[in-house]
Amino acid sequence: MALRLQFNLTDFESRFREVLTMKREISEDVDTAVRAIIADVVEHGDKALIDYTNRFDGLDLSKTGLAISSDEVDAAIKVCEPDTLSALELAAERIRVYHELQKPQDHQSTDSLGVTLGWRWTALESVGLYVPGGTASYPSSVLMNAIPAKVAGVERLVMVVPTPRGETNPLVLAAARLARVEEIYRIGGAQAVAALAYGTDTIQPVAKIVGPGNAYVAAAKRRVFGQVGIDMIAGPSEVLIIADKHANPDWVAIDLLAQAEHDTAAQSILITDSIELADQVERCVEAHLKTLPREKIARESWNNYGVIITVDDIKDALALSNRIAPEHLEIECQNADELVSSVRNAGAIFLGSHTPEAIGDYVGGPNHVLPTARSARFSSGLGVLDFMKRTSVLKCDRQALAVLGPAAVALGKSEGLDAHARSVAIRLN
Amino acid sequence: MALRLQFNLTDFESRFREVLTMKREISEDVDTAVRAIIADVVEHGDKALIDYTNRFDGLDLSKTGLAISSDEVDAAIKVCEPDTLSALELAAERIRVYHELQKPQDHQSTDSLGVTLGWRWTALESVGLYVPGGTASYPSSVLMNAIPAKVAGVERLVMVVPTPRGETNPLVLAAARLARVEEIYRIGGAQAVAALAYGTDTIQPVAKIVGPGNAYVAAAKRRVFGQVGIDMIAGPSEVLIIADKHANPDWVAIDLLAQAEHDTAAQSILITDSIELADQVERCVEAHLKTLPREKIARESWNNYGVIITVDDIKDALALSNRIAPEHLEIECQNADELVSSVRNAGAIFLGSHTPEAIGDYVGGPNHVLPTARSARFSSGLGVLDFMKRTSVLKCDRQALAVLGPAAVALGKSEGLDAHARSVAIRLN
Repeated sequence: MALRLQFNLTDFESRFREVLTMKREISEDVDTAVRAIIADVVEHGDKALIDYTNRFDGLDLSKTGLAISSDEVDAAIKVCEPDTLSALELAAERIRVYHELQKPQDHQSTDSLGVTLGWRWTALESVGLYVPGGTASYPSSVLMNAIPAKVAGVERLVMVVPTPRGETNPLVLAAARLARVEEIYRIGGAQAVAALAYGTDTIQPVAKIVGPGNAYVAAAKRRVFGQVGIDMIAGPSEVLIIADKHANPDWVAIDLLAQAEHDTAAQSILITDSIELADQVERCVEAHLKTLPREKIARESWNNYGVIITVDDIKDALALSNRIAPEHLEIECQNADELVSSVRNAGAIFLGSHTPEAIGDYVGGPNHVLPTARSARFSSGLGVLDFMKRTSVLKCDRQALAVLGPAAVALGKSEGLDAHARSVAIRLN
Repeated sequence: MALRLQFNLTDFESRFREVLTMKREISEDVDTAVRAIIADVVEHGDKALIDYTNRFDGLDLSKTGLAISSDEVDAAIKVCEPDTLSALELAAERIRVYHELQKPQDHQSTDSLGVTLGWRWTALESVGLYVPGGTASYPSSVLMNAIPAKVAGVERLVMVVPTPRGETNPLVLAAARLARVEEIYRIGGAQAVAALAYGTDTIQPVAKIVGPGNAYVAAAKRRVFGQVGIDMIAGPSEVLIIADKHANPDWVAIDLLAQAEHDTAAQSILITDSIELADQVERCVEAHLKTLPREKIARESWNNYGVIITVDDIKDALALSNRIAPEHLEIECQNADELVSSVRNAGAIFLGSHTPEAIGDYVGGPNHVLPTARSARFSSGLGVLDFMKRTSVLKCDRQALAVLGPAAVALGKSEGLDAHARSVAIRLN
């Protein structure tokens, strides 16, 4: 049973604050181990990768080689279901089209003083993409991470994926091919992150590392940050659904469970102005749970972290949602299009009754790599800009410098930076 | 004397690699102390701030209060030089105009399937701005951090600045006023970062913390990252100047020293295709050094980290510059406008002989908060986007879901996520 809160009760604020500060992740302290692994890869390169892969994945890379060849990818694609491959192709195309819209514009203009100002966007030269092994190895995530990088113009996209006892996920390799990833290594864990950041004889280093991973991968990414760029450190998934009395309780219930089935630490929240809907959804959740293959995971998530909040006015639902800053926000209300303008903090919004969050996980087009754990208050989902950087451009001619120079000299002197001041003054004479 | 390298010598590559991997910063291990300070502020709030400020800044906040009042800012402005104030105003206006150009556009379109797609940009609700005390307290940095936040639409901008023994920098307060910062606290160090991230009775928490600081501030920012957003962790400043035989050696020399005077760990690099210019610049550097108030700092930086590289072809200079990925890049060549298109990795570019980097530090318009330590390979200078976040929006109607749904069902099932598949399938019937 999920937690049930009522907005107009006096204890609401304190109980809502408990929801906001709920700890859902047990942070494993793996930093010491990760530090040693990184140092080892920096010192011993490929040899360290071979040793760790032997130990952690039960695989002898000295026999298989580090790289997964193009022939192996061809072979993997042949064993995939044709229907699933077609679905992946549709997804890839829609993700590509959406992200093309995100490509930024360069700017250059000359102001009234004759100063030419602007910026240039350029793609990162190389990016590493971490893909988990085992059950958390999602082909859709390969597309979501790789396609924006390719749209940005990243030339070299390197994938690493652990293959425990040599087992690969054919759909992951198919997704890599679709996303035009041409360099793949069968390594994982902190050792793979270290190899991408610092390079080995076989693997050239990259400029940025993206993609999800376990506690070791997350700790390694934090540690190599600065040497290379990293994306966000993602936490367990979340959905918040705002629904009114017109919503279908059965649909709302399965959407809540589609989050809950990810992980026992996932969180599903419903806010509604209809007590009747709240009651119906609770019952539908129980009915669905009984027939879900991942019942155990979903039930644990729902019982421990599920929340249903009833409000008198749907506007209060929006205000609470902005405080939560959910990763995924579904608005299943009749006036969804109107309510969306009040959303301030959310990773992704799904509008209306025919937009279940799962459509966005796969084939909607927008990215499914989104800020979790309330970080939508200050960050965005993955996009093309994460694979580009902006360089400002400034050009003064003699006349422009004559106008601007004295102010720069004054400020340089006021900050005690005389060489700054002199570098301008010397050009004014 | 700076290091001198020649591109066409056989040992060049190995010596250049040494330049690339030069360690300029001694990373102090302050993490244990910082962890304790943060825990203390989380537990004791204002009381902890009072204790630490007593201990580190020799100031009794229980007498002064935490906040710097509007009256104190008024009084500070009155003691500033009118010329410097005018220069600050010019700088603020130019920074504002440049950053207005960066404001991103929302997008919404409906594709041929009837799927409505897009995104909305929203400003962060609140941002904390760290300003160092003492000699590293630069009014220009207040403008560069605060104005993009205000342009983005951040409502609440909170500044923290330590005031050792109660001493404030009047120009810093004047800059805060110009940038419309209306909430200022006289605290610094890891304790100020903790207060901004977690809040106290007096200080409401913020969503993101930006601004430079010492090793304690940097470690605290790394540690609170996730709870709040942070900007980059900036290292010592750098300039790379590409100059041809037409450049003025005296101007090039003072530009190199304008970086070197920042910090003994700063780095100034010249790459030129003229051995004559290289020799002249070396001599001019020596001549300038003798008359600089910050001679000692600048000389130590130049002797330890200064580099002059001579190349046969200026195109090689661009290639080397892209490998270095400098924070600041000056191109003082006759064909500067043409060469700029070959720049791939740089924080900010300054074109031609009348654009000394110092003009960009103050009144050019572009931001002077830029990626250091080769991080221009993967990141950008501070801008309006750092104070906004993008929320994707997706809406399917019944018909669109009918077309896209089967692919989502197939992918959900292929990933073993049956509730995902069911949440779509249930709506298709």
